[in-house]
Amino acid sequence: MGILETIKDPLDVKRLEAGDLPQLAAEIRESLVGSVARSGGHLGPNLGVVELTIALHRVFDSPRDPVLFDTGHQAYVHKMLTGRAGDFDTLRQEGGLSGYPSRAESEHDFIENSHASTALSYADGLAKAFRLRGETGRTAVAVIGDGALTGGMAWEALNNIAAHRDLPLIVVVNDNGRSYSPTIGGLASHLSSLRMTQGYEHALELVKNNLGRVPVVGPPLYETLHGIKKGVKDILTPQVMFEDLGLKYVGPIDGHDEAAVESALRRARAFGGPVIVHVLTRKGHGYAHAENHYEDCFHGPGPFDPVTGEERPKPHGWTNVFSEEVVRLGAERDDIVAITAAMLHPVGLASFAAAYPDRIYDVGIAEQHALTSAAGLAMGGLHPVVALYATFLNRAFDQLLMDVALHRLPVTVALDRSGVTGDDGPSHNGMWDLSILQVIPGLRVAVPRDAVRLRELLAEAVAVDDGPTVVRYPKGAVPPEVEAVGRLGGMDVLRFDGADARAAGGADVLLIAVGPMAGACVEAAALLDAQGISATVVDPRWVKPLDEALVEAAAAHKLVAVVEDNGRVGAVGDAVARLLRDADLDVPVRTYGIPQRFLDHAKRPKILSEIGLTGQGIARKITEAVARRVPALEDQRSPILEGQPARQAQSTD
Amino acid sequence: MGILETIKDPLDVKRLEAGDLPQLAAEIRESLVGSVARSGGHLGPNLGVVELTIALHRVFDSPRDPVLFDTGHQAYVHKMLTGRAGDFDTLRQEGGLSGYPSRAESEHDFIENSHASTALSYADGLAKAFRLRGETGRTAVAVIGDGALTGGMAWEALNNIAAHRDLPLIVVVNDNGRSYSPTIGGLASHLSSLRMTQGYEHALELVKNNLGRVPVVGPPLYETLHGIKKGVKDILTPQVMFEDLGLKYVGPIDGHDEAAVESALRRARAFGGPVIVHVLTRKGHGYAHAENHYEDCFHGPGPFDPVTGEERPKPHGWTNVFSEEVVRLGAERDDIVAITAAMLHPVGLASFAAAYPDRIYDVGIAEQHALTSAAGLAMGGLHPVVALYATFLNRAFDQLLMDVALHRLPVTVALDRSGVTGDDGPSHNGMWDLSILQVIPGLRVAVPRDAVRLRELLAEAVAVDDGPTVVRYPKGAVPPEVEAVGRLGGMDVLRFDGADARAAGGADVLLIAVGPMAGACVEAAALLDAQGISATVVDPRWVKPLDEALVEAAAAHKLVAVVEDNGRVGAVGDAVARLLRDADLDVPVRTYGIPQRFLDHAKRPKILSEIGLTGQGIARKITEAVARRVPALEDQRSPILEGQPARQAQSTD
Repeated sequence: MGILETIKDPLDVKRLEAGDLPQLAAEIRESLVGSVARSGGHLGPNLGVVELTIALHRVFDSPRDPVLFDTGHQAYVHKMLTGRAGDFDTLRQEGGLSGYPSRAESEHDFIENSHASTALSYADGLAKAFRLRGETGRTAVAVIGDGALTGGMAWEALNNIAAHRDLPLIVVVNDNGRSYSPTIGGLASHLSSLRMTQGYEHALELVKNNLGRVPVVGPPLYETLHGIKKGVKDILTPQVMFEDLGLKYVGPIDGHDEAAVESALRRARAFGGPVIVHVLTRKGHGYAHAENHYEDCFHGPGPFDPVTGEERPKPHGWTNVFSEEVVRLGAERDDIVAITAAMLHPVGLASFAAAYPDRIYDVGIAEQHALTSAAGLAMGGLHPVVALYATFLNRAFDQLLMDVALHRLPVTVALDRSGVTGDDGPSHNGMWDLSILQVIPGLRVAVPRDAVRLRELLAEAVAVDDGPTVVRYPKGAVPPEVEAVGRLGGMDVLRFDGADARAAGGADVLLIAVGPMAGACVEAAALLDAQGISATVVDPRWVKPLDEALVEAAAAHKLVAVVEDNGRVGAVGDAVARLLRDADLDVPVRTYGIPQRFLDHAKRPKILSEIGLTGQGIARKITEAVARRVPALEDQRSPILEGQPARQAQSTD
Repeated sequence: MGILETIKDPLDVKRLEAGDLPQLAAEIRESLVGSVARSGGHLGPNLGVVELTIALHRVFDSPRDPVLFDTGHQAYVHKMLTGRAGDFDTLRQEGGLSGYPSRAESEHDFIENSHASTALSYADGLAKAFRLRGETGRTAVAVIGDGALTGGMAWEALNNIAAHRDLPLIVVVNDNGRSYSPTIGGLASHLSSLRMTQGYEHALELVKNNLGRVPVVGPPLYETLHGIKKGVKDILTPQVMFEDLGLKYVGPIDGHDEAAVESALRRARAFGGPVIVHVLTRKGHGYAHAENHYEDCFHGPGPFDPVTGEERPKPHGWTNVFSEEVVRLGAERDDIVAITAAMLHPVGLASFAAAYPDRIYDVGIAEQHALTSAAGLAMGGLHPVVALYATFLNRAFDQLLMDVALHRLPVTVALDRSGVTGDDGPSHNGMWDLSILQVIPGLRVAVPRDAVRLRELLAEAVAVDDGPTVVRYPKGAVPPEVEAVGRLGGMDVLRFDGADARAAGGADVLLIAVGPMAGACVEAAALLDAQGISATVVDPRWVKPLDEALVEAAAAHKLVAVVEDNGRVGAVGDAVARLLRDADLDVPVRTYGIPQRFLDHAKRPKILSEIGLTGQGIARKITEAVARRVPALEDQRSPILEGQPARQAQSTD
């Protein structure tokens, strides 16, 4: 029986002899590699924090001391040490372990949101609550990567934490020099200079023995003496960025030396006020295929072979199409520049960076800056393409609205991973953008249905020169091409209603398929047809502003149904309904999308099927809607399906 | 003739003799005090930057060198020096000078958005564009207050600027130690330590003469020698926070010594890479009533007497009601804590701070941290009330969604200055929240119509313990109380439809008045009544989730009209329409709100009148809507106004 199997609770970790810990770490790594090889997940980050997490649970008393993992995907080891090691074969499966902390899973998990740079703010709030409620002895611990420190929220939190010198709060900076890609910017250089510091172990002892207070460690004699002269606070230069903010600094510590980390954490805890503990780790540590992975140290691979480290080949996805197209556009126009927020590879900008190294900006995990810097670039005469995951655009909503749109600047936002993404749980689903973007004056939004349309709409987007554009597309494989059979205004008609209905002067249902819902809508139309309900299918291509031709099209149908891969509140469906109301066209509208709740993790197709966004699901919803309006559907003289439709629509219900 | 009158262009500023500048500064101050005394506006910040702005326009070549004012309200002097001094009697009047930079006004203005902490990101983008396009000799200059540096975006930008050492970019930190209130946090302490630095003028000379490169100035001999030993970069301790990021630092400079500022700017410009110029100014400088103003150095007064400095008494406004009520709630419950983002006085939390000094947190201009720290406080068992201007909540949308709502935490957000605010132009109108908040699962939103309801709904909000709540109210005076005449579910009925219509089994129009629109809607109903259109008026009080009783109420009317003081896209009107559609109730709905565009500055009542959100305007809109549906309105047999209404609604159009 291995050691890991005996760990049912952090108390079991505390009870282990120091000599057992290397074996525990080895078993954890073996389990991590095995689990992620089966299910995909975040491997590199978790391999890097094995010893750190063991040390955290030996020193702190979770959940009394909340241990908060920024971005959450570095919490697998934490899960194993808090009673969930036996469940790792269910990782990221529907109904199984989440790939992120989950409050439903364990009292040891506090943060479910996997957006970066938030943990310090939670810790600030928790520590303030402990103090105010007189809960002495509790310490809030936030573990944050060096990449996440580039996010503005982390700065806001550090500034506040420093203002309260008695907060029981420890910030562990897990510094592996890279989040997804190598961390960039001034902070990265600063941390790098800290890493270069020699002789810190010696200084550590010196300070501990001579000063008996929280250790600050640093370079050789000159600075050490200088520091003692000025007090421990200023003992060395490299730490000063944190010290200038009034934060105690301990480090750098070798994050794979469990005893050293444990020792640093114990002393930080004893200090009683905010302390930064700077821990150096290696992403992918202990698994050669991850350590040496060319791109991102196996940050978040799909299923792979644990022996060879080979991932199953990924299908040609939306990201690849964007990647190819933006390179092509970059060749045509040298005013096109690209911006990524620490996601060069995941958003498909690596090829652009290779082709045009002067025209790519990786701004760190800093979506706000990404958008406003893009505004500046556009003011300067360039056309920036900002590629983000859809869910992360929420971070830069104000910047897109006030910095880009208010100034009518030509900035194109490419939104990858929009709609249901599934595996990564509620905070990764890109189900918000089609709603909140509706309010932005002058913004144009395109939703391509297939690879051909992504190329086409991206080209149209970068051709817009009087305001911002968004092109959004989902995660994963591109669906088969859906040919247009006609054009109506700027919209593609994907299917005309049955000939009989046309002959009678109007069809039953106008099905508006938003982008990737096209295939399912065409399928639904065929199913409806078989039930005697004729349906036209159009793809608006640009969903904001909506094409005025929609009004005329709607007037020729008895029911308008909108189907989209976005939360249904405030999205394209509501916009269509408003467009028709504003035209005094009171044709019934029904809107179908993602239910407006936080979705548990599962595979995208499974979720789409469960929420009815498939051909069959859509057909069923529409059939039911029609049936509720017209109980006597089979009766061809049913009022809703007869005569001059639209503006005479009438219900007998 | 004064000197100011001769300034038509920055070239005129450059041509002046140094000896003329004090006179120019005095004239500018006189004009500032006179203009703001008449019209209200931002006085304190502008009095503080007179010499700085003169120096900027003598050193740089605007608009070739863009001079970007963070937050914008410190740009009055800039306006005067770029040809607009003669227009200051129109300041903030409709059709007159904007209180912020305005691209329509002048080629010297770049940023219209007045949200804080953005200027460094614009400058980063502009400087990158200059470099990429080979526009040598152009320098981007960003002027940012110490308060705005507490915003995370500024950190994101600094981190990026530092990564590009050849960017032609200068960051002027205008440090007056306070934005609205004294700036807080670790950064403020750090800047304060810089301000304490003695002997910097001496060091300035020393460095300039001996090293012949960008000056870095600092404390006495020991560190200076130390610095020379290590190279200029590390010459002194206090500057290191910026230096650690790789940014050159010049300062601190006396911001009221024009020659000193000019000299520092010239040398910073010559350096060619990013430089921080740290300028110390005094808010309100040169006008005693502002310097000594107890609260905020006359940050943004209404009209006042220039001789006595006395403001016209302000009416008892929404903010006062919130202020009183949150203090009362704080007395009842010691778990209530309050958070402000550098707006203690403007949002009405000063009384709370005085009453419960342990339970108030001013987080700086850091809305993201405000919300996520609130999440931590709530996790720790407290109930935070976060008071913000409505427009600034956009900065923390992701945090409210992912950090607060996903975890179902009891946090109450009090949104002041919602709806049309008017004077401060497009980026201050709070016209977005009722739309984007719709998408947040589990969030409840209340909109009080008067002072009684604000007290009532705030109390209901802080009683909610399983998720976040928002209570939103406008700027200015509270309107007269609108009594309820009945209750329908959780909604107040403000007016029953005319007795005749009730007798006939249904009324014509259900008017849904969102909060402060109540008075206008009741007035509109009376006007409609006079035209033979009977109208019921309800106030939903809580607009998210909507009361299910609305469905039944709508079914008893022939038309539903929703009136709200928010952008009409995706707001309560759309939510009502969706609710009814989802209930298969296809009664016609019409939605009235703020047109979805950026509004020019003007007074709130004027704007509301122009966009038709008055009693008369609403009555007219509804009359027209009915007329378009029923050309024969006067004919009492008109189908829309007869028989079993609602589900048999039919148009003859």
